[in-house]
Amino acid sequence: MDISNIFKQVVLTPKSPVPLYNQIAQVLTDNIQNGTLPAGTKLPPERELASLLQVSRTTAINAYRRLEEQGLIHTKVGSGTYVATLSSSTAPTAQTVPWSQLFTPCLNTQSSSIIRELVASAAADDTLSLAAGMPDPELYPLHDFNRLFGLQASRLNGADLGHIPTEGYTPLRQAVTTMLAAKGYAGKPENTMIVSGSQQGLYLVTKIFLEPGDYVIVESPTYLGAVQMFSAANARLLSLPSAAGLPLDLLEDYLIRYRPKLFYVMPTFQNPNGRVMPLEERRELLKLAAKHRLVIVEDDPYGELYYDKKPPLSLKALDPYGGVIALGTFSKMLFPGLRTGWVVAPETVINRFALKKQYIDLHSSNLSQCLLYDYLSAGLLQEHLAVVRAEYKKRRDFFAGALERYCSPLLNFYTPSGGFYFWCALNKGMLTRQLLHEATHTGVSFVPGEAFYADAAGSRELRLCFVTQPPARLLEAVKRLGKALQTVAANRPFPPKHPVFTPII
Amino acid sequence: MDISNIFKQVVLTPKSPVPLYNQIAQVLTDNIQNGTLPAGTKLPPERELASLLQVSRTTAINAYRRLEEQGLIHTKVGSGTYVATLSSSTAPTAQTVPWSQLFTPCLNTQSSSIIRELVASAAADDTLSLAAGMPDPELYPLHDFNRLFGLQASRLNGADLGHIPTEGYTPLRQAVTTMLAAKGYAGKPENTMIVSGSQQGLYLVTKIFLEPGDYVIVESPTYLGAVQMFSAANARLLSLPSAAGLPLDLLEDYLIRYRPKLFYVMPTFQNPNGRVMPLEERRELLKLAAKHRLVIVEDDPYGELYYDKKPPLSLKALDPYGGVIALGTFSKMLFPGLRTGWVVAPETVINRFALKKQYIDLHSSNLSQCLLYDYLSAGLLQEHLAVVRAEYKKRRDFFAGALERYCSPLLNFYTPSGGFYFWCALNKGMLTRQLLHEATHTGVSFVPGEAFYADAAGSRELRLCFVTQPPARLLEAVKRLGKALQTVAANRPFPPKHPVFTPII
Repeated sequence: MDISNIFKQVVLTPKSPVPLYNQIAQVLTDNIQNGTLPAGTKLPPERELASLLQVSRTTAINAYRRLEEQGLIHTKVGSGTYVATLSSSTAPTAQTVPWSQLFTPCLNTQSSSIIRELVASAAADDTLSLAAGMPDPELYPLHDFNRLFGLQASRLNGADLGHIPTEGYTPLRQAVTTMLAAKGYAGKPENTMIVSGSQQGLYLVTKIFLEPGDYVIVESPTYLGAVQMFSAANARLLSLPSAAGLPLDLLEDYLIRYRPKLFYVMPTFQNPNGRVMPLEERRELLKLAAKHRLVIVEDDPYGELYYDKKPPLSLKALDPYGGVIALGTFSKMLFPGLRTGWVVAPETVINRFALKKQYIDLHSSNLSQCLLYDYLSAGLLQEHLAVVRAEYKKRRDFFAGALERYCSPLLNFYTPSGGFYFWCALNKGMLTRQLLHEATHTGVSFVPGEAFYADAAGSRELRLCFVTQPPARLLEAVKRLGKALQTVAANRPFPPKHPVFTPII
Repeated sequence: MDISNIFKQVVLTPKSPVPLYNQIAQVLTDNIQNGTLPAGTKLPPERELASLLQVSRTTAINAYRRLEEQGLIHTKVGSGTYVATLSSSTAPTAQTVPWSQLFTPCLNTQSSSIIRELVASAAADDTLSLAAGMPDPELYPLHDFNRLFGLQASRLNGADLGHIPTEGYTPLRQAVTTMLAAKGYAGKPENTMIVSGSQQGLYLVTKIFLEPGDYVIVESPTYLGAVQMFSAANARLLSLPSAAGLPLDLLEDYLIRYRPKLFYVMPTFQNPNGRVMPLEERRELLKLAAKHRLVIVEDDPYGELYYDKKPPLSLKALDPYGGVIALGTFSKMLFPGLRTGWVVAPETVINRFALKKQYIDLHSSNLSQCLLYDYLSAGLLQEHLAVVRAEYKKRRDFFAGALERYCSPLLNFYTPSGGFYFWCALNKGMLTRQLLHEATHTGVSFVPGEAFYADAAGSRELRLCFVTQPPARLLEAVKRLGKALQTVAANRPFPPKHPVFTPII
């Protein structure tokens, strides 16, 4: 049968509200369903169809595409278009959405799940965790917050619980600015923005400054979450080993060669290595930054958690040229569930951040912001800090003693003067991943050093958090760690000095 | 003087820790500062410099770049590189950071500020606002929330205020799932994710599904914030006029021609036009969506705020093919300051959203989530909804009466059966922007219709929110609106029927 006859009879109505391709599809549908075009019939190529019906090729393509979506025809590549078998046309199967084809490209999915796992592991089984960097829940000032909420009930007004400015609840912005002024910050409330944890501050920095391919300098080792964030933005990371002091020559070299967008740095109680950058080094860094107009992102979640002497002024407080963006949070001082942090930056940067944050969530939680304002106004933060400093100092000393007793000399550690972590290195011949494996058996967890490096370093290092648990549990955790260490040391297969890369086939 | 002599004397040390370009820069700096190379001296081109010193061209470029950053030399395009005048080299001026050069490109900044202004205007002067879509602060269930917080104090544990899963506080996910089951949703808690307001749900949808150039179908008119969000993602919007019923033919035409990523739709008490999509139309839409495997984003902030009969089941509840992503929020039912909403979607989508949200803020506010869980568990939401439904119904009727009395027949309005808004149209010959101008004088504000269209429509339309204020203030607001209308009607210059575009020179 000459199927072109079918098409010769077709009358199309160009001015109809029904598009032409739809009219064509309907004619074909009728002919398929009434059996004039049985299953297996070869249909004319699109070009020929267009010519037969005197329509554009696009219209012909759309007509076929529609029939294909309805399961009435199918195309064999290199062969042609055919009428489909009836079963699939009469009873179209339930369509499912091909979700994974619809998603935007996902970068670095694997590494980005590490933080989530750490967060999830907080509620794990009887393993003692030295991994997650959280304050001790027993020390959360829950009583004070509860009392304040009670007091607020008569004082809160609708405006406080409606929409508030994206930049933050105005009284809290003021209170945080005052709190930071006591630390030497020179800014006005307009320079302070409230965000949903310093995580969101970092997200805003990334979104506003980084385009794919941009360079970012990070310390090596550095905060896991920052590396993940920058990597997910497709930024290129330049590692700056800072444990023995910032190598300013290398830094300047980077600045000139790569013109990086940002330098992400934790000058005070660095995570993971606990280092405090000396005042003179801070000044040198800022001098260099000013010269090259480098933007510094200073992350300082632990600055108030010092156990010996007060650390030097922050980079932001010393900033001579206005190029430092400071990130802070109440998560480590009080508790993470507040989801409240801040960004301090020039107003033009804050404005840009606010524009972005508006899209993300309009503004951060009013409840947390109102409560924090009351908490700060009542001077309770300083009282609380005095309590936790004293307690964490005790734990630090206790932890150092326990490590000395149960883990030395297989494990070398650096005792921090503040913050949450002991940064440790295994003796030569042992690898952290061996220890991690053993530790799951003895019931203790920690973060392996590799998580803190943008490159493949850290294979003998590990980070231990000493604040989250009371001494009795810390002791038990260290004992378990020591046991795992002994096992690894006894069985160690003396791995090769240089890592061997086994290709995955 | 032959300055190539200077370079002939240079001794470079390739193995020095000081990079070559730095060594070269130092030689030049010395010669500039000791006057051997006075201001205005033309330096050799980079290629020649590289050849003189037998270094790579990159090294020569970096040496010059460094000197330029120090203000010691400057480059004139097309002419060459010159030693700068001494004043700028001896006393480098304080550098400021060129922030705007560092920011990532900002799309649609102008329109994106409209929401922020609406949010800010909530706390304005003596203008009566019919603009912002907020519940009445006098009706916030503050007393209940306070009491619950008091009760919680003894019950909250550290885990509740530490880090919780990105997908939400587990008991709240369960409670929201149960709440939605009563509305016909079939999902499990794994299908429900807690977000920081439905704004964040929309942000996640945008980030996970839209790449620049992707097509999105939106109703016309539609929610301002959605249009801004999609536009900022550089998506291309296809408008679907839905006021008189969804034009399914046009929708299918869009689906075939453009293969859009999403259809963003508010089937219940549409914002701004108040329309409720009938059940039969919902089914037809879903049939079409299933056929084309279209992803529908159903935004339903007002579904529980019905004043006549209950609206039909949501698209998500009717969803036969798993392609509907539902967004919801407590902001309109309770108060915006909770910053708590939800997304219901297939697990594979939720997983992807969680991965993204982790970067944004780790998780939403624990305080809001814990309180909401208690609030829902105690059955208080249904009690509260009964109260506000009754009150808002009264206000709706009162507002319709006032509009009839003070604004008809200059203004035509549609009385909604739920939600927050009256959608109005001015008589021919009047433009909303004339009214807006007059209204600022009489002291009342509203959202002009143009804000709800992706194209240039809506010039005679406006949206009035009737729930935020008690009747006495609503009456005064409508009187002021009526006065503004009278002025416009009296002075109207009978604008041309077709808009005239005056180019800005």
